Amino acid sequence: MAKIGIVGGTGYTGVELLRLLANHPRVELSVITSRSEAGMAVSELFPNLRGHVDLAYSEPDSEQLKACDLVFFATPNGTAMKMVPELLDSGVRVVDLAADFRIKDIPVWEKWYGMPHACPDVVDEAVYGLPEINREAVRLARIVANPGCYPTAVTLGFLPLIESGAVRLDGLVADCKSGVSGAGRGANAAMLMGEVGESFKAYAVAGHRHLPEIAQNLSLIGGEHIDLTFVPHLLPMIRGIHATLYAKVNDESDLQSLYESRYANERFVDVLPAGSHPETRSVRGVNTCRIAVHRPQNQNTVVVLSVIDNLVKGAAGQAVQNMNLMLGYDESEGLREVALLP
Amino acid sequence: MAKIGIVGGTGYTGVELLRLLANHPRVELSVITSRSEAGMAVSELFPNLRGHVDLAYSEPDSEQLKACDLVFFATPNGTAMKMVPELLDSGVRVVDLAADFRIKDIPVWEKWYGMPHACPDVVDEAVYGLPEINREAVRLARIVANPGCYPTAVTLGFLPLIESGAVRLDGLVADCKSGVSGAGRGANAAMLMGEVGESFKAYAVAGHRHLPEIAQNLSLIGGEHIDLTFVPHLLPMIRGIHATLYAKVNDESDLQSLYESRYANERFVDVLPAGSHPETRSVRGVNTCRIAVHRPQNQNTVVVLSVIDNLVKGAAGQAVQNMNLMLGYDESEGLREVALLP
Amino acid sequence: MAKIGIVGGTGYTGVELLRLLANHPRVELSVITSRSEAGMAVSELFPNLRGHVDLAYSEPDSEQLKACDLVFFATPNGTAMKMVPELLDSGVRVVDLAADFRIKDIPVWEKWYGMPHACPDVVDEAVYGLPEINREAVRLARIVANPGCYPTAVTLGFLPLIESGAVRLDGLVADCKSGVSGAGRGANAAMLMGEVGESFKAYAVAGHRHLPEIAQNLSLIGGEHIDLTFVPHLLPMIRGIHATLYAKVNDESDLQSLYESRYANERFVDVLPAGSHPETRSVRGVNTCRIAVHRPQNQNTVVVLSVIDNLVKGAAGQAVQNMNLMLGYDESEGLREVALLP
Amino acid sequence: MAKIGIVGGTGYTGVELLRLLANHPRVELSVITSRSEAGMAVSELFPNLRGHVDLAYSEPDSEQLKACDLVFFATPNGTAMKMVPELLDSGVRVVDLAADFRIKDIPVWEKWYGMPHACPDVVDEAVYGLPEINREAVRLARIVANPGCYPTAVTLGFLPLIESGAVRLDGLVADCKSGVSGAGRGANAAMLMGEVGESFKAYAVAGHRHLPEIAQNLSLIGGEHIDLTFVPHLLPMIRGIHATLYAKVNDESDLQSLYESRYANERFVDVLPAGSHPETRSVRGVNTCRIAVHRPQNQNTVVVLSVIDNLVKGAAGQAVQNMNLMLGYDESEGLREVALLP
Repeated sequence: MAKIGIVGGTGYTGVELLRLLANHPRVELSVITSRSEAGMAVSELFPNLRGHVDLAYSEPDSEQLKACDLVFFATPNGTAMKMVPELLDSGVRVVDLAADFRIKDIPVWEKWYGMPHACPDVVDEAVYGLPEINREAVRLARIVANPGCYPTAVTLGFLPLIESGAVRLDGLVADCKSGVSGAGRGANAAMLMGEVGESFKAYAVAGHRHLPEIAQNLSLIGGEHIDLTFVPHLLPMIRGIHATLYAKVNDESDLQSLYESRYANERFVDVLPAGSHPETRSVRGVNTCRIAVHRPQNQNTVVVLSVIDNLVKGAAGQAVQNMNLMLGYDESEGLREVALLP
Repeated sequence: MAKIGIVGGTGYTGVELLRLLANHPRVELSVITSRSEAGMAVSELFPNLRGHVDLAYSEPDSEQLKACDLVFFATPNGTAMKMVPELLDSGVRVVDLAADFRIKDIPVWEKWYGMPHACPDVVDEAVYGLPEINREAVRLARIVANPGCYPTAVTLGFLPLIESGAVRLDGLVADCKSGVSGAGRGANAAMLMGEVGESFKAYAVAGHRHLPEIAQNLSLIGGEHIDLTFVPHLLPMIRGIHATLYAKVNDESDLQSLYESRYANERFVDVLPAGSHPETRSVRGVNTCRIAVHRPQNQNTVVVLSVIDNLVKGAAGQAVQNMNLMLGYDESEGLREVALLP
Repeated sequence: MAKIGIVGGTGYTGVELLRLLANHPRVELSVITSRSEAGMAVSELFPNLRGHVDLAYSEPDSEQLKACDLVFFATPNGTAMKMVPELLDSGVRVVDLAADFRIKDIPVWEKWYGMPHACPDVVDEAVYGLPEINREAVRLARIVANPGCYPTAVTLGFLPLIESGAVRLDGLVADCKSGVSGAGRGANAAMLMGEVGESFKAYAVAGHRHLPEIAQNLSLIGGEHIDLTFVPHLLPMIRGIHATLYAKVNDESDLQSLYESRYANERFVDVLPAGSHPETRSVRGVNTCRIAVHRPQNQNTVVVLSVIDNLVKGAAGQAVQNMNLMLGYDESEGLREVALLP
Repeated sequence: MAKIGIVGGTGYTGVELLRLLANHPRVELSVITSRSEAGMAVSELFPNLRGHVDLAYSEPDSEQLKACDLVFFATPNGTAMKMVPELLDSGVRVVDLAADFRIKDIPVWEKWYGMPHACPDVVDEAVYGLPEINREAVRLARIVANPGCYPTAVTLGFLPLIESGAVRLDGLVADCKSGVSGAGRGANAAMLMGEVGESFKAYAVAGHRHLPEIAQNLSLIGGEHIDLTFVPHLLPMIRGIHATLYAKVNDESDLQSLYESRYANERFVDVLPAGSHPETRSVRGVNTCRIAVHRPQNQNTVVVLSVIDNLVKGAAGQAVQNMNLMLGYDESEGLREVALLP
């Protein structure tokens, strides 16, 4: 049983991590910290955990964290970078669910996140935790940067097309829609049900922090600069991301086969039969990304539909998948539930 | 590994049974029948089951069903009663998720369900599958009548009060609210999202089929006729039942202690601390009933709040709980997931 | 054209007042104040008002307000009582949408609202603005206390029963359900869509501020103390209140006729045919209260179903109705739209 | 007062027409037909119309319809084309809310709608009822083809760009999202709240009937064939369409000014300030199309955000706008309500 710590477990990714780890057979939750809720039982804040998690939040205490085998950071951006170096020095391995270690180009990170980076060298070392690309590196990593939710859905959706050279790298479009849980549990009038229920809108069209992360991923895959337009939208529902991706095909390859063979050995990527339309609910609560590929009217635009649960494959589930790899467990340990439908 | 059959698995209770049984370590799904969908893969109808259930629907075939150890009926009312006697004769044990065996008084059943009963003697034998009341009888039962969703929430909510004589038996009120999945997956204009979204209403105030079932339960518990007003309402959400129960207290007993001690050994009934308000989402996807008991303004009306997931503790989960008892397994086998929140 | 002012128009009752007044043919919006948003165009905060309202928020300024014929307060509790005396002295008439003038018993008000009252004498003078009870007094009033949303739905629902002596005054139950807009537009983590979407719960069972207001209303109607249990619940939708009311009948009067005759001349109370179940959406955006009365199973409990739009008949619409009465206009001026369905 | 008939008023566009016409000061509803509901009061089917519409549905009767000045068809596709020629011959003017007269190329229509067309000559005569393009022709038309919901949002969104030559005509993308009311009120298991609530998906990616309509519009505007990819999606909400449009700019024109000047005199198209993100709720219940134009990261892809209420500007509201033009009324008569927010 590995000893696990969580820093900052009061948000939606925190409770989701707790849900997944509570039934994981090979780990033991040792400590969960929260400055604001120290002393409160976790199950008081999240009653779904009653009977499953006995811990209470504690003040962040580096000694307790150093006694863990692996620590998850489910903190706001900018927190992990201040604590991670000391943990790494103590031999603790880390999965950061925030954005601190995702962008390799430090000035780009600093521009989008609006603060100086506290440990650029750890960014160098960090492995971007998308196992479908970096599986072997994740196994050996001391520090894993868990991908953002949009980047996960978009990167997995475009990956076979770009890797194989089947599409042009200019003019990529990612029209993405997310449930409201992506905005977190903080008090924010803009996310009241009275504001976002029964309505739909785009946001951050001018530029969203996940744009440089997606661009970094796709450029690495394609081997050159890509030109991407990324438009996020807010759905009047809680969980789920749907990415609708557009690209111009270069040739006449069989796209269905391309996707099926690329993901044949990936347990958490499910390529649907030709003609399918994945629903976000088909992945509610689970770590799967479901993908369908279309070429409407047989024209030269390919349309890829990619869905994930933003809190699972887009956050806590992928973090557990990375943990499993890092600790040498079966990659799907604790991640074999069936999605909740309806 | 017990061999399990499901008759009629195309509705919401069917897919929920499949979800729960897919990861149950001690059973094997042998056959699932559906006249309308025979030949179709289960996972084509319900994509959340892709990778978890390989079965296809087959025509109802009594030989296949007779080879099972236990068969669930997730069929419309009136179907099970025609097939169950033959299965029982063959030594197969049965859990009926419909209403065919719930009401002991045959004329009452025939009045509310609008058809003659095909096998009144099996009704006599059937055990009402609310383990918190009938656990030992369920273990030995050949045929279990799985309770309705409203009756489960209401009966568990009133049970300690009535059993202990703490309240008067006249003037009980059960004001109940259910998510739309309780109405099933059949084409029905009244249940379109355009009709039931962003709106709320009562229905069947003049009389609902669950009224005689609840009345039978409470009268058995109380040892005499009870006078109950039951008003169901339809919530603009998918899963969850919230029963708000009102009764007049007879005495000054400590109601919080009464509930806590009655349910101290029940793993699927969770009495919340005094002053709590259970949310339906705290039981989404799980077999738990969460209950809080209040005595507002210290007057003599007690208010009980009881929540379940109508598809789990109110249907498929309770059916699996009954199966576990019948097959001698741990009662919570396959039912230990954490509720999906948010 | 009467000159109208609004104090505090940044919340949901504020925008709803603006929507209704924008198309009212006999009033002119002169000023709308907001300390926090002073200088911002109203239509920037609420884009639905683009092209309909040209005003910008201004700092509260008593001179501007004193130049109005009538001023609405759409402020938090405790604000109006500090400003109203001066306005009344200047000959301005006032409708307060908050609770400052609703409760006649000052110690009761101070207990529930947690502050000393600034002008008890104005409370004495204030008319409780439920026109179905106090129409003539409203016409003459200088200061109208606009009723709360729950009290409106519950009082109109119980009124014919209590007024006529048809029911016992002990053991009344009001099981009420409200959409989330009732909680306002302030930043509040508990009202995030991620917290309240797809879930349902009771709240404030121990005691809610609308309890003394309802009790005052019903006791006045009944002529003696009533014993009421009031349980509010939160619906996963935006607009609408549904009150389900329970009482014990005293006699065998024809309840349907009782309701139809009591409300025969009320344009904003619509008694549905026997056997009906009003939906909240049937009053979305309009000032109507729809009511149905049932006596299930012909027992001696009467069940009344009463629905309103909490922001219209439960707040801004009723305020405009009161304004129409005060200014001598047709009571339905500006209130003749059809509810938005679906 | 013009005499108005409606054929087929039992669906969502029907009830919306009734809502808008009920308060229109210059028309009188003479007849509303429905074969299935003949004899039923309109307000029994749609309780929001109680007190506003006294009509009952009647059997379709050509004499009654011929006595009208103008008849709306709110029928399934293929019905209007069988009845319209006779009405036109009798001097009745017609607005068809279905698709029978939208596509000028008859073989294209027959392919997408799967039936032979009954009156191709009337198609020739019909005016496509998008007033922002065809205002003068609509005034004189005997028969108006009211545009589809997606085509309205997409055409108004792309219009300034294509008309001015600011973008390339290949590689246009229209990623569209619609509320469920677009699918109508018919019994359809796929549109149950249990199926479409709390979930999101694309549909008909291979080809949707609105594709040829949009392509016809844009090609006419652009003066040559356009290459468009159109992907519709289903939102878990009732009303509203959001079109997110992508095109490659040809030059460096000021797009904000282009939109503002093109729509300066259009009362039902509202161009938002630069940087805005229109919400569908800002047009709920009203005939406005709100548009914002972006050029993210200053790259050469322009992103247009266009929102309408699919039942108003996308159906019944635009039909009333067309009626106003045909009857010589002010174009906004009966269409001046404020959107319902929240």
